Formats: sequence, C-alpha cells, structure tokens
Amino acid sequence: MNNFNELLKKYADIAINIGVNIQKDQILYINAPIESNEFVRALSRSAYDAGARDVMVNWNDDELALIRFLNAPDKAFKEFPQWKADGLAELAKDNAAFISITGNDPDIFKDVDPEKMATDTKTKLKALQEYRKYTMASKVAWCVIAAPSKAWAKKVIGIDDSEKAIEKLWDKIFKIVRVDREEPVEAWKEHTTNLENRVKYLNKENFKKLHFKSSITDLEVELPKGHIWAGGGEKNDKDTYFVANIPTEEVFTMPHRTGVNGVVKNTKPFNYNGNLIDDFTLTLENGKVVDFKAEKGYDVLKKMLETDEGALHLGEVALVPHDSPISNLDTIFYNTLFDENASCHLALGKAYPTCIENGSDMETEELTEKGANDSLIHEDFMIGSADMNIIAEKQNGEKVQIFKDGNWSI
Amino acid sequence: MNNFNELLKKYADIAINIGVNIQKDQILYINAPIESNEFVRALSRSAYDAGARDVMVNWNDDELALIRFLNAPDKAFKEFPQWKADGLAELAKDNAAFISITGNDPDIFKDVDPEKMATDTKTKLKALQEYRKYTMASKVAWCVIAAPSKAWAKKVIGIDDSEKAIEKLWDKIFKIVRVDREEPVEAWKEHTTNLENRVKYLNKENFKKLHFKSSITDLEVELPKGHIWAGGGEKNDKDTYFVANIPTEEVFTMPHRTGVNGVVKNTKPFNYNGNLIDDFTLTLENGKVVDFKAEKGYDVLKKMLETDEGALHLGEVALVPHDSPISNLDTIFYNTLFDENASCHLALGKAYPTCIENGSDMETEELTEKGANDSLIHEDFMIGSADMNIIAEKQNGEKVQIFKDGNWSI
Repeated sequence: MNNFNELLKKYADIAINIGVNIQKDQILYINAPIESNEFVRALSRSAYDAGARDVMVNWNDDELALIRFLNAPDKAFKEFPQWKADGLAELAKDNAAFISITGNDPDIFKDVDPEKMATDTKTKLKALQEYRKYTMASKVAWCVIAAPSKAWAKKVIGIDDSEKAIEKLWDKIFKIVRVDREEPVEAWKEHTTNLENRVKYLNKENFKKLHFKSSITDLEVELPKGHIWAGGGEKNDKDTYFVANIPTEEVFTMPHRTGVNGVVKNTKPFNYNGNLIDDFTLTLENGKVVDFKAEKGYDVLKKMLETDEGALHLGEVALVPHDSPISNLDTIFYNTLFDENASCHLALGKAYPTCIENGSDMETEELTEKGANDSLIHEDFMIGSADMNIIAEKQNGEKVQIFKDGNWSI
Repeated sequence: MNNFNELLKKYADIAINIGVNIQKDQILYINAPIESNEFVRALSRSAYDAGARDVMVNWNDDELALIRFLNAPDKAFKEFPQWKADGLAELAKDNAAFISITGNDPDIFKDVDPEKMATDTKTKLKALQEYRKYTMASKVAWCVIAAPSKAWAKKVIGIDDSEKAIEKLWDKIFKIVRVDREEPVEAWKEHTTNLENRVKYLNKENFKKLHFKSSITDLEVELPKGHIWAGGGEKNDKDTYFVANIPTEEVFTMPHRTGVNGVVKNTKPFNYNGNLIDDFTLTLENGKVVDFKAEKGYDVLKKMLETDEGALHLGEVALVPHDSPISNLDTIFYNTLFDENASCHLALGKAYPTCIENGSDMETEELTEKGANDSLIHEDFMIGSADMNIIAEKQNGEKVQIFKDGNWSI
C-alpha cells in the first residue's frame, strides 16, 4: 500500500506537471467521481506543491446520475444552471487549468432511455458552449486522466472481486502512463518529443488525402487546406505547454467536413455516456453519414447522430500504431481515453480549431468555410486493426504508404 | 443490511417530507460530505418521489479541505467564487429547498492555524450573505440532518473499528429521529405539535427576562419587545411548513443584543469548524462578551469572537429539558445538531429575524434597533445541566420558575 501511495503521488505529479502543467498562482478545477477521492487528494497536494492558488473540485456520482435519469421529471433534462456554466467560463477566462477524471462504470446507463440521455447531454453541452470554446481551442490547459472505479475495474479485468480488480487496473494504468519508470516526468518529455517528430513529418508533407483500407474499412479522408497535425502536447494562450490526454499515443488533425467518402467499421466498443455501442458501420458521402448499422446500441448511436447537423460529420482523424504500448496489453478498456490510444480513430462532431491555421482566432462560420466541422459533440471511435493500411496522397497526386499492416511504414 | 436500507429510506423520507417538506416542482440542493453518498442517494430518490424538479448536490470532502488549509497560499482563504455565491442566492430566490448533511470528523482541523480558518470562514460567510438572508429569515425551506462519517462515529462511540462504530452511531441516530417507530412521519407531526404547545405558552406569557442559574452559571437574559418564540417547524414564504433541524427538541427566541448580563459556562464541548472548544466561561455586560476563558481551544474561540462586533453578542436563547430523549442517551456527540438538542443553549452571533415581529421584512438596521443581533456567524453552545433553574420575569415584574433542576417545571 505504501508503494501504491508512492505511485499515486507520481501519477498525480504527471497530471499536474505534464498534463495541465500548473503555473504559479493558477486555479485548478477538477471534475471527479466521488470514488476517485484518493487520487483527487493526491492531485490537490501536487497542485499546491506546484504553486496553485487554489484547487476547486466538482464531484460527481454516477449512481446519483442514474437515480436522476430513472426518476426525475422530463423537464429536469432540459435545464442546466446557467450560473454554473458562467462560472466555468469565468474560470477559463481567468486562465484556470482543468482536469477531468474518467473511470466510470461503462455500463451504468444501459437501461436509461436514450432520448432522455440525448436531451440531457445536449442541454449540458449547449450551456457549456462558452467554456468549451476555451478547451477545444486549447486557450487554457486541460487534461483528461483516469482513476479506476470498482465497476470499471471489474469490467476491464473480468473478475468479481472489486478490490483485486482495482489493484490490477491501477497496475495497468501505472505501466501505461510510465509511472513505473525511474523518472516518469523525464520519460514523458521523451515520449512527447517522439510524437512531435511524427507531427513535424506530417505537417511538412502536407498530405491532401488519406485512404484507410482494411478488410472491413475503405474510407477516403480529405484533409482541408491549412490543416495542422498535432500530438504530444500543445501550448495554451499563455504559452504553457500542456498534454490534454494522459496517456496519449496519437497524432491527429481534422478531416475536411465535406471530404470524407466510403465505409468504416469500428474495431473496439465505443462508450457514449455510459452506453456501449459496438459492431457498427458508417457509410459516408461527401463527409456526411448517410447510412449506419449497429449490432449493439443502435438507438443510442441514432440519438447521438441526431444531436445536430455536425454530429453526422467527422471532426478528427488520428493515427496510432497497432503495436502501441496500450494496444500490446491486449485489453479492451471500454474507455475512450485508453482505447483511442491503442488504435487509429475518427471522431464524429466538432473539430479542434487548433487543427487548422489560425483556427483558434476564427469564428464558427469561418471555420466551417475552411472545412472544420462544428457540433455540440466530439466523440472518438476506434477503427485501427492489424490489417489497416493507409495510403497518403500528396498535393501533387503522388502516393505514399504511411501505415502498413497496422503500423507506421515510414 | 436490508433492514438498514429500509431505515435509511425512512430517514430520508423524514428529511424530505418533514425536514424541507419538498413540494412539487421544487429544486432540492444538498450540501453533503462525499462519505455520505448512500444517504444522499436515498434523499434523492425520496425527493423525486415527492415531486422534486431536480436534485443538485454540492459534495465536499474534509480531507481535501484539510490539505487546502495546510498547503494553499494565504490568498486562497481571502477568495470565494462569486458565481457560486450568486448561484445559491438565485436558487433561493427560485424557492429551492436546501439540505445540509452534517457528520464530519470533529477533530479534523485541530492542527490548522486558527487565523487561517477564521479568514476562510469570514470570506465564505461574507460571500454567502445574500443566500443566508433567505435561510436565516426562513424565506426558503432548509434542513440540517446528520450522516455518520467514520471519524465522527469512532469519536462518539469510542471504539476503533470504524464499521462497527458507524453501525452503532446510525442506531443512535435512527432512535433519536424516530425512524424506529411504526409511522415515523406521524410521530414527527405529534412531536412538533408538542413543541408548538410550549411555544404558544411562552408567546402568550411574553416574558421580559430569563434568569439562568446553576452551580456554574448565573446569567440574566433580557428578551426584546416583540420577540417571538419558535420551535418544531415554521412556514417559509410560500407557506410551506418545514423543520430546519432533524432532530429538534428546542424552543428558542432571540435575547436583546444589549440586555444580557452575568457569567455562563459551557456544559458540552463546542465544535467550531472542526475544532473543539471546551471548559470555557464567558462574562457578559450589557449583552457583550467582556471577558472569556477556555481550557481547550482558547485561540479558536478568540478568533471566532473577533469575526465581527456581533460575534461578541448573543443571537439565540434556547430551552431544552435535561431529560430530553437525546440527553438521556448520555452521549456526547461533538456535533451541535445533537448536543444542542440535549441541552439549553445560547448562540453567539446573528439572531433569526423570524424571532421578532415582522423581522423577516426588516433591514439589518431596523433589526438592530429592535434588539436583534447581527453577525456573520451564528454558533450554538450548550449551557444546560441537571442543576439548571430558570426564573422567568413577566412584563409586570412577577416571577415564574419555568425550569427546575434541568427540566420544565410548568
């Protein structure tokens, strides 16, 4: 247990010093499940060590959210306290840093009416639009990082003893995030440098199009003019380098919102707000989903796609080798943060404005014109596999194979 | 455990249907320690059953508060997010109901610098002034109710096995709040009627002064013209009858802010924000504390009295028989909610505006003029004992003994 506390402290230090990279006098705002209290306390200690002015925690409880979904009247899902949304926007304006802890029960909302969930999500996202402008455009430092809940650990590890499951899941997480290394913070710096070298290559080549081809997927993804690849970390408005996902193994950019054509099938379960969607196929024409099927979670997927017009278009394309450290654990995490870093993936919904030249300074209209998709949602789903090949097309029409049998071939 | 869940549900029903008496379409706002999650979930279910529009929970964690006190820079204690304070005031304006769950570790902040704690409390109370106007004047329904934390249970029960301690403390609480009765809600209605009969008597007699006399206390407490006794429940601005404390055994009114003279010594430990103050004596002249001693927690008491001018004056006088059900358990709870209902008590700080005729509609200046004390704080301390006698003086000078040897004598 003593050893666990040491590892937890190192993990917290990575979130604080690499993740949001707390600067002196900043406020840290943490979104956290009440089950993650030990990790939140470690984060808080580490944040004050790094000079944080204050730490605010917005606790949540999935069990309570479930009670609400099953018992509250319909109008509850159409209201969100404006003062809370304004508060978050104010904190962002004041250059607070934001950590969200993920690790919830992937099945908790399986019996909830998808209509109700969709309404609730839409209400929340609409209210939080102003705040999300800051995070989506990387104007402030933010980071998503995991802490196991009992239910999540049991699902991933596949045993019923929740204490043992949590222990085993922590082991996996600590390994994935390099907490077991001698100098975890240094190891992270080396890792982000490697990702940045991939980014430099892709930005130099300035490809026009990527063609994803496997036994189940055949998709052409056009990249807009001025697109920017990102990966590892990025700089916020105050020039602070932060890493928005711990772990991260991806390099990513935005597809052209009307330039995606073909058929794509997911290769790992997709968890949308506590609902599993699996074995689904999307058919896209001129960037838009024109047909979809799903063996599992069809109704939830349907509701998600109906969120708004942008929910039918792609907002992200990301490249991750099939032999990535997470992928090699051969574990399905039922959690986007891990699964997306084990697989090439796409996202439905809003594109990151930082993925196009001067995008952070553009209004939505201009972004749309340049090919950047807009939506209330941004949802990753996994498409990588051992037989995935990617052919990239240069502006002059020349073709280069950048992925062969699931891995980088350049 | 099944039986426990049934009792917990009944306890939640009392909080919802007697405590805040939730009406259809109301929002319920709960302040809760993360340790009390089971009770919060029960409250939430019960609230939706009663027709609540939505339930919002503001979780807190004492361990995290302690980390903040020990590590945050000084300026953290001088700031409170205004948007949060405004949000609470807005909810109150919208006639939300407010439940606060108490049950924290009575010793958690014992090593914290009293200066820091005092600054933090003052900052918070100042920011929340608008919201507190609604609760202090009973314009909205609010209720304080307990749920054991491990640390509190261990302290009260005096054993180290926290699970057993929690079980035993729940047993005590369930007994005290009549959850073990056949019809707890009916039992509560009968109980509040009994308290109201005491209130009617005291309001009819309209005493001018109360003289508290025991082996350690000798205090004359003048009651202002137009004072009102209260107890049991009261009505909020929407005419909803609510009971602000579960349990409650007291009848109370306000002393005249300049009309208290003599010496008073506490008879149970006084817990101020996670600090114990004990064996203390106050000397009052013309309503003001002019001298004080304390064997334990002197510095904390000193800081509390320095909060503002009103912290040196009394804001409440409450009568509780020494043979009350809680008192007969012969347990020190180290928690005001229980200890105050086992003993006659006084409060330093703000008086409830409802305790004087038309007080809810008066501004602070007029209240002060009428004899009602104002302060950022309102802190109860216990003075009842087996040898307490109380002589009440009528407006015509006639004297009546209302308490003899600790109990009602009328």
